[in-house]
Amino acid sequence: MATDFRLKEQLSDLTERIVDSYQEIGTINHLGHCPLPSTQVIVEIIDDLREILFPGYRRRQNLHMGNVSYFVGDLIDGLHDKLTQQIARALRYEYDRLHGPTCDSRKLIDFEARGQQEAIRFLESLPHLRKILTTDVQASYDGDPAASGLDEIIFCYPGIEAVTIHRIAHQLYSQKVPLIPRIIAEYAHGQTGIDIHPGAKIGPSFFIDHGTGVVIGETCDIGANVKIYQGVTLGALSFPKDTEGNLVRGTKRHPTLEDGVVIYANATILGGDTVIGTNSVVGASVWLTKSVGPNTVVTIETPSLRLREAS
Amino acid sequence: MATDFRLKEQLSDLTERIVDSYQEIGTINHLGHCPLPSTQVIVEIIDDLREILFPGYRRRQNLHMGNVSYFVGDLIDGLHDKLTQQIARALRYEYDRLHGPTCDSRKLIDFEARGQQEAIRFLESLPHLRKILTTDVQASYDGDPAASGLDEIIFCYPGIEAVTIHRIAHQLYSQKVPLIPRIIAEYAHGQTGIDIHPGAKIGPSFFIDHGTGVVIGETCDIGANVKIYQGVTLGALSFPKDTEGNLVRGTKRHPTLEDGVVIYANATILGGDTVIGTNSVVGASVWLTKSVGPNTVVTIETPSLRLREAS
Amino acid sequence: MATDFRLKEQLSDLTERIVDSYQEIGTINHLGHCPLPSTQVIVEIIDDLREILFPGYRRRQNLHMGNVSYFVGDLIDGLHDKLTQQIARALRYEYDRLHGPTCDSRKLIDFEARGQQEAIRFLESLPHLRKILTTDVQASYDGDPAASGLDEIIFCYPGIEAVTIHRIAHQLYSQKVPLIPRIIAEYAHGQTGIDIHPGAKIGPSFFIDHGTGVVIGETCDIGANVKIYQGVTLGALSFPKDTEGNLVRGTKRHPTLEDGVVIYANATILGGDTVIGTNSVVGASVWLTKSVGPNTVVTIETPSLRLREAS
Repeated sequence: MATDFRLKEQLSDLTERIVDSYQEIGTINHLGHCPLPSTQVIVEIIDDLREILFPGYRRRQNLHMGNVSYFVGDLIDGLHDKLTQQIARALRYEYDRLHGPTCDSRKLIDFEARGQQEAIRFLESLPHLRKILTTDVQASYDGDPAASGLDEIIFCYPGIEAVTIHRIAHQLYSQKVPLIPRIIAEYAHGQTGIDIHPGAKIGPSFFIDHGTGVVIGETCDIGANVKIYQGVTLGALSFPKDTEGNLVRGTKRHPTLEDGVVIYANATILGGDTVIGTNSVVGASVWLTKSVGPNTVVTIETPSLRLREAS
Repeated sequence: MATDFRLKEQLSDLTERIVDSYQEIGTINHLGHCPLPSTQVIVEIIDDLREILFPGYRRRQNLHMGNVSYFVGDLIDGLHDKLTQQIARALRYEYDRLHGPTCDSRKLIDFEARGQQEAIRFLESLPHLRKILTTDVQASYDGDPAASGLDEIIFCYPGIEAVTIHRIAHQLYSQKVPLIPRIIAEYAHGQTGIDIHPGAKIGPSFFIDHGTGVVIGETCDIGANVKIYQGVTLGALSFPKDTEGNLVRGTKRHPTLEDGVVIYANATILGGDTVIGTNSVVGASVWLTKSVGPNTVVTIETPSLRLREAS
Repeated sequence: MATDFRLKEQLSDLTERIVDSYQEIGTINHLGHCPLPSTQVIVEIIDDLREILFPGYRRRQNLHMGNVSYFVGDLIDGLHDKLTQQIARALRYEYDRLHGPTCDSRKLIDFEARGQQEAIRFLESLPHLRKILTTDVQASYDGDPAASGLDEIIFCYPGIEAVTIHRIAHQLYSQKVPLIPRIIAEYAHGQTGIDIHPGAKIGPSFFIDHGTGVVIGETCDIGANVKIYQGVTLGALSFPKDTEGNLVRGTKRHPTLEDGVVIYANATILGGDTVIGTNSVVGASVWLTKSVGPNTVVTIETPSLRLREAS
């Protein structure tokens, strides 16, 4: 070792300057006694939920009707506690953000209680979630000639992973749980390359094939039996600003896809007023900012290409 | 804690309803005494294989000719056991899927024995796999001016990661091992954003640069010295259905690229009859559904753009 | 178990053949007593750095001004040691690559000492890095109507993750540390789908929205207040070769974006001489290989689409 330990002494001065910067620049640090939700625990929650929604495929093997109630009961019990704590933290965080810092014990109790209510409300939605996910898995099989069976889809299709996690995130979003739905959605984005904002409304039998690069915006409204391929953007056309030049948040900015719509690879559909009518098909690489009626096939003009001999 | 423990009591009723749903909706759970292949063990297998294929770069350091046989021998021994078990599970799963549930001990023995045969057959392919991967690494260096050397490519190029894992998956696919090749391929997809179906045939000296969003379909046939950039789709044009309206599985649906072809970023090439001839170049963003002869450069017409002053 | 143990005996012969291949094909193995940098330790380093840059959001909770100096001081101390070791390994690797194998103890000492210098130089850049990252987080909030606040952005925006890691990698790249900057960049690419070469120069207040599929090449030069959406490529037009047909490395091959430029989804901008002028806007799916003046909006011609009734 040729490390010069005298050089290390200057590091305590550096530490001081970094800590000083936490006071100067308060916007990108979270110092205080009220902990934020934990990304790590949220990922554990998602993992536990997937064990319940699709039992027998991942962590736990050798499940059968004789032992599965113990397995599910134990997971539900743990999820109740984890969700209660994380939702309480998120609610407290949101309260502080809107009303300034709190943290006395009475308030803490209130967040804890509302956290538990929302946790239970969420867990009660699981049987319904399972029903919808069955339609998504079936739609994946019906839509992909490369699929050998439903199990393969549950095991490894990123589209099913993204839609499963989206349906979890959207349920919490509907319950107005702050922060957590977005953390969940971005976790799925990182795992799959599929970016679905938790606010997006998506009907049953939804199938995303391949999926890398898909972007589905916050105010999208997607009907039943819709199929989307890799690289599709369902995005905003432009962002309205208020008289002070700030972005207006919360308006319908993203398209509506009615039942039975198919959007092929790398198509881009933009705008909150854009509606793709029932059973219409949007071809690969189409760029659309206007509505299309029902039962319509939209394709790009066969592109003019230049061919020349390679030099 | 303001958790109300009486509220937790209703969770046992919820557990019951979830478990009931496993009997009602049997398609998305796997309950039974025959375990499925384990995604976690399969990821460990890939990781072990990469240590053997590219020794000294990742987990294990300080390897030299004096100790490397012990290291490789130990990994091979463990891989034999893990692969045997996982392939046996996949074979048993496939048998059940096609013939209805089995699980008596005699059948178990058969799957175990065939699992071992396929495991050994796979391991025997490793020296050949290494030879082809050498050409892929060299092709990456020759094709990328940003590469400082071969080691950098092995260390961190997602294209090499995806192609390495594809060649593993494709070997198992050729041996008709069910389920596992696809699990392996989707693992690589998740890690790299590059989606190569294990069925795709790919020649030596293959280079994918950047890679995010690349999709290479099941029945692609790619020659030697081919180079592909990010966002390229080699996909299907349409899916033939049988007289009952079901998708026909297993036909040639994806393009053929002959030796020396280059496909630039975000080009889309579709269809099982589409052949790109030897040494041809397909430019960025080209959309092709027809064959192109050898030694041809295909580019998009310089697009008409609208320029106006920013308001 | 129906494993036939006699079959396992042939594996020792296989091990031998694999080890032999390490001598035949020397290009894709690293055998020797000088260890390479460790990807795992480098990922730990990035993780530690993010705890310092954005304290209180991830691993460590309940930080406050009373304990944060201990936390930061301890991390800095560990980072000094890890960075010194990893940079020393990278420097030794680079020396060997250019001058042939070394490894005697005197040389080792030199690399260790220069490793420490570069480690300290890097750590000293952290307060400045934090200042720039504050502008990036603010730019993300100002540019995205779906963002509820700065914390949400730090918690889960992949754009901020990619830019944070890029600024770390670029600092090490500027210090001419070999290998490690690229390993860091490809780690971010794997996590976010955003591929930024560590050489790219990027000004303050940079915002990447959604991000999957973004490619920013080595010699890009990006000004202040620039905004980029998913699927954007800032790439090379063609690679000059020298008289022997080898790629010329190190020339300016990628575009320049001046201050205030916005590039919408899936636009492709190519070439080292291509300059997008101040405050110009490049629309979605535009394909550009020429410069554009300041204050200009470039959009694709409204594409001709074919509409027909679905059969």
